[in-house]
Amino acid sequence: MELTDAERSYLEAARLGRLATVDADERPHVVPVCYAVLPDHVVSPIDEKPKTVGPDDLRRVRNVHTNPRVALVVDHYAEDWSRLGWLQIRGRASVREPGADSHGPAVTALREKYHQYHDHALAERPMLAIEPDQVRSWGTLDPAAVA
Amino acid sequence: MELTDAERSYLEAARLGRLATVDADERPHVVPVCYAVLPDHVVSPIDEKPKTVGPDDLRRVRNVHTNPRVALVVDHYAEDWSRLGWLQIRGRASVREPGADSHGPAVTALREKYHQYHDHALAERPMLAIEPDQVRSWGTLDPAAVA
Repeated sequence: MELTDAERSYLEAARLGRLATVDADERPHVVPVCYAVLPDHVVSPIDEKPKTVGPDDLRRVRNVHTNPRVALVVDHYAEDWSRLGWLQIRGRASVREPGADSHGPAVTALREKYHQYHDHALAERPMLAIEPDQVRSWGTLDPAAVA
Repeated sequence: MELTDAERSYLEAARLGRLATVDADERPHVVPVCYAVLPDHVVSPIDEKPKTVGPDDLRRVRNVHTNPRVALVVDHYAEDWSRLGWLQIRGRASVREPGADSHGPAVTALREKYHQYHDHALAERPMLAIEPDQVRSWGTLDPAAVA
């Protein structure tokens, strides 16, 4: 994953990203997601309990099966527009099931980032793994602004 | 635009949305945008000076010309996950040039929302107008959380 140090710090600090996928009718879909950064990809959990985490998980997975191309953006707002900034990752997503080699490190990384996952059955849930093709950023990438 | 009162308050209060578009190769693209809410659509300015507002305006316009389907999400984060919430609008976008009937009200609405546009040549710039087909929301739509 080709990230500058500033980009990696910003991406690691942000609590929420917004993940865009495309459905079979070429319509985009975008929702906020929790994620964690691993050395060469980003992981985002898929929860199967819509009432607790949001109603759009199944749609996201369906879209990724139809079209693996995704885009993830992390950003922050400031009334001083000279301090705005964002980071966008475009790439391909795949669903990783529990038991896959890469699943354990994803669970660990998510639990290190979010204490809310400590008591969560994350190890039994599929994950989205996002492998970047392209990273673009703009403006002021201040980790404190997204943390 | 079919919004509950709570959805409209949340959408109006948020300073930043994230707009997803799709390119000719069916790849999604997502960037943060400023926007204002009008009675039946949402407008977002397109700036032609990439150095001052971000490098992705032209890509967004090109995508909308190729595929008018867009999705806009507004959300907020809280460490107490029972307080998370988001609102997603899916619809069609079109580019409105200065001089179009609907352009003046868009400029007014954007200047009412963002003081940063008061001295900005917004009236001479094209706008994206987003006409919703579908609005979905989830969680706690607290306007104070996004303002």
